[in-house]
Amino acid sequence: MNVVKVGFLGFGNVGSGAYKILKEKRQEIFHREKINIEVAKILVRDIHKKRSVPVQPYLLTDDIEDIVNNPDISIVAEFMGGVEPARKYILSALENKKTVVTANKELIAKHWPELEKAAQKNGVGLYYEASVAGGIPIIKVVNESLQANDIHEIMGIINGTTNYILTKMSEEGRDYAQVLKEAQKLGYAEPDPTADVEGIDAMYKLSILASIAFHAKVPVDFIYREGITSITAEDIEYGKELGYALKLLAIAKREGDAIQARVHPTFIPLNHPLSAVRESYNAIFIKGDAVGNMMLYGRGAGDMPTGSAIVSDIITACQQKGAYRYTTFYNENHPSAYICYLSNWTSEFFIRMTVRDKPGVLAKIAGVFGKYGVSIASVIQKGYGGDTAPLIFVTHPAGELSMKSAIEDIKKEEDVLRVENVIRVER
Amino acid sequence: MNVVKVGFLGFGNVGSGAYKILKEKRQEIFHREKINIEVAKILVRDIHKKRSVPVQPYLLTDDIEDIVNNPDISIVAEFMGGVEPARKYILSALENKKTVVTANKELIAKHWPELEKAAQKNGVGLYYEASVAGGIPIIKVVNESLQANDIHEIMGIINGTTNYILTKMSEEGRDYAQVLKEAQKLGYAEPDPTADVEGIDAMYKLSILASIAFHAKVPVDFIYREGITSITAEDIEYGKELGYALKLLAIAKREGDAIQARVHPTFIPLNHPLSAVRESYNAIFIKGDAVGNMMLYGRGAGDMPTGSAIVSDIITACQQKGAYRYTTFYNENHPSAYICYLSNWTSEFFIRMTVRDKPGVLAKIAGVFGKYGVSIASVIQKGYGGDTAPLIFVTHPAGELSMKSAIEDIKKEEDVLRVENVIRVER
Repeated sequence: MNVVKVGFLGFGNVGSGAYKILKEKRQEIFHREKINIEVAKILVRDIHKKRSVPVQPYLLTDDIEDIVNNPDISIVAEFMGGVEPARKYILSALENKKTVVTANKELIAKHWPELEKAAQKNGVGLYYEASVAGGIPIIKVVNESLQANDIHEIMGIINGTTNYILTKMSEEGRDYAQVLKEAQKLGYAEPDPTADVEGIDAMYKLSILASIAFHAKVPVDFIYREGITSITAEDIEYGKELGYALKLLAIAKREGDAIQARVHPTFIPLNHPLSAVRESYNAIFIKGDAVGNMMLYGRGAGDMPTGSAIVSDIITACQQKGAYRYTTFYNENHPSAYICYLSNWTSEFFIRMTVRDKPGVLAKIAGVFGKYGVSIASVIQKGYGGDTAPLIFVTHPAGELSMKSAIEDIKKEEDVLRVENVIRVER
Repeated sequence: MNVVKVGFLGFGNVGSGAYKILKEKRQEIFHREKINIEVAKILVRDIHKKRSVPVQPYLLTDDIEDIVNNPDISIVAEFMGGVEPARKYILSALENKKTVVTANKELIAKHWPELEKAAQKNGVGLYYEASVAGGIPIIKVVNESLQANDIHEIMGIINGTTNYILTKMSEEGRDYAQVLKEAQKLGYAEPDPTADVEGIDAMYKLSILASIAFHAKVPVDFIYREGITSITAEDIEYGKELGYALKLLAIAKREGDAIQARVHPTFIPLNHPLSAVRESYNAIFIKGDAVGNMMLYGRGAGDMPTGSAIVSDIITACQQKGAYRYTTFYNENHPSAYICYLSNWTSEFFIRMTVRDKPGVLAKIAGVFGKYGVSIASVIQKGYGGDTAPLIFVTHPAGELSMKSAIEDIKKEEDVLRVENVIRVER
């Protein structure tokens, strides 16, 4: 049986994990899948740098041509991250008729049609399971197990760092800044945590997920995004009291040709399966018209879980040789032509404010909500005998714009000292 | 593009669901998957019976030959359930070079090697996603997304009826018999509930799941089985007090060549993702050496969810034409030759007993546990001032046989009135 030679672009965390798996499990994979996979070349920036995973020096190169122009290599696996030079290298690999396996969410989210067209033109495949939710096989499940379904809703915890932070804040009653610092020390958060805590990482992944689920390209630019930096221990505590857990959710919904996609802190009922997803775990909750509710839960990052997805894609690529299933987006050429991207979506809201502790304040604020057609589902009002008191509302479903206007008016009320936070609620 | 003609064996709940999906989504599936699927014949017992899903009379037949000897039909989908005549019909379809898609867990659990050998001999496929956990694509995930993993543990809630009953018992504090009766009225439990409440249904599914996960045939006969009929509201209540939820779990573990497989009521910690699986939902928790912990959650039964799995298998069968991946069990010819099937496995135990409420009883019982090397993790002892009192132990991991011996001795203690229940605990 022929040896399938694979070239690696990058050898960081995920690359090393995939390498370790392919090396240790080579016999086993050969026995079970009848495929003999060998890592033939690895592109690195510095071939002299010491590696955490031992690798033969002759495998390393700092010249991309050793991989994309290597006739022995039929599959190229990319772990560099970022758009350039990954995009250029991948296009070059595809042009040279090599199937590409990638973990690069930003690249796929931003340049998917270009890459897939190049793959199609050259009769090779483009696999990206590892780009969303690490070890969780959500891409394959949506593409190859839910074909009988119209998927109309996705809600996902697809960033481990923020879920770790929110879990600690919730279970230990601690504040954001404190937990972030600890997470950084433990390696759960980057020194610059922006991409995680501001929801950028989740936004890329949601763009990919929503696009395959809805068969329509959902560009990154259309995704509303709000991070977790303004969340406080108080928000989480009052949410619990009302029966909710706080998660950074990536949400996409489709109704006919109207699509909404958003990443923001979200309260969900404590008996929702997503609320039990703790620490750095990821989970994606999907509603399909035939299959009903479904959830996939697992490790969304890490060398071995993401390496597991990479190796699975490499094996699939070998088995599907020449039969890659190209993605069809019905709005491919004009991303906005046939689709209405909603910004004025509807959801329930949790609003926490600090007000003067005196009679009539609640009625006044309720009046403002009423003016904008926002109906109130529950209220927590607590007087501590001081001058000020917290006041928390949960509304029935209301439009984004109505809520925005109501909050602007409420801020003008002289008895309202601060609107502390406005957090959306999903069920 | 050619029309793929499918023959149905049976037209009950699942068959009707699959039929409805294939009819309503024919254009959509054609557009997205480039496959044009038509149901060409449906085998039923009585062609004159009124159907809940409308179907053209000419599609119905009561002669199996109209399907297995129909040269136009390339795929046969079976929904009859039970071993015979389903086995005979499927073998006949395979012999006639038709790929088979089935939802029949009992048949696959009992006759898989025979059926797969017939498929292999004739160069066709045998798909069975719908046989385990309805709409949850657990078979494909294990076979085609976790190839890089050694799976060493599976724990699943794979019977919706029992999970519904246990959820109601737990959330409403009601007793088994009462909830069962209600479940039967609502159609969640069969008039004869034996297969569900005694764990037989879960046992078939576990046999299939464990076999593909461990790459070793795990025969039904080797699976330990205990149903939920002796579970009381008290057990569940005391479990909660100790931080556990009660579930009927199907459990399989592998260590080297030693495999254990068992279906029994099980306490799991309240923060375990499986404990949040409520009502008739199913979920399968898997531990892989690369991917770590993973869980799939969804609808384990029902016409549309199971129909979704059937249709997905039909589409996959069309796409993999001639490239079906036959299962290899390394103990295929001698199921027990290379494998040690454990019956004396180790787990923690919850033991609830009623004892005389007088000094020294606890010490005496603890002494018996000590004699058999069973170490105690926690105790609940409650005196109500009467003659008798409940006494609950949770142990550290202990062997099955040690526990059995200890319980036999404890029953002989004159101050022990009854050992009410012994329930295993997993984490």
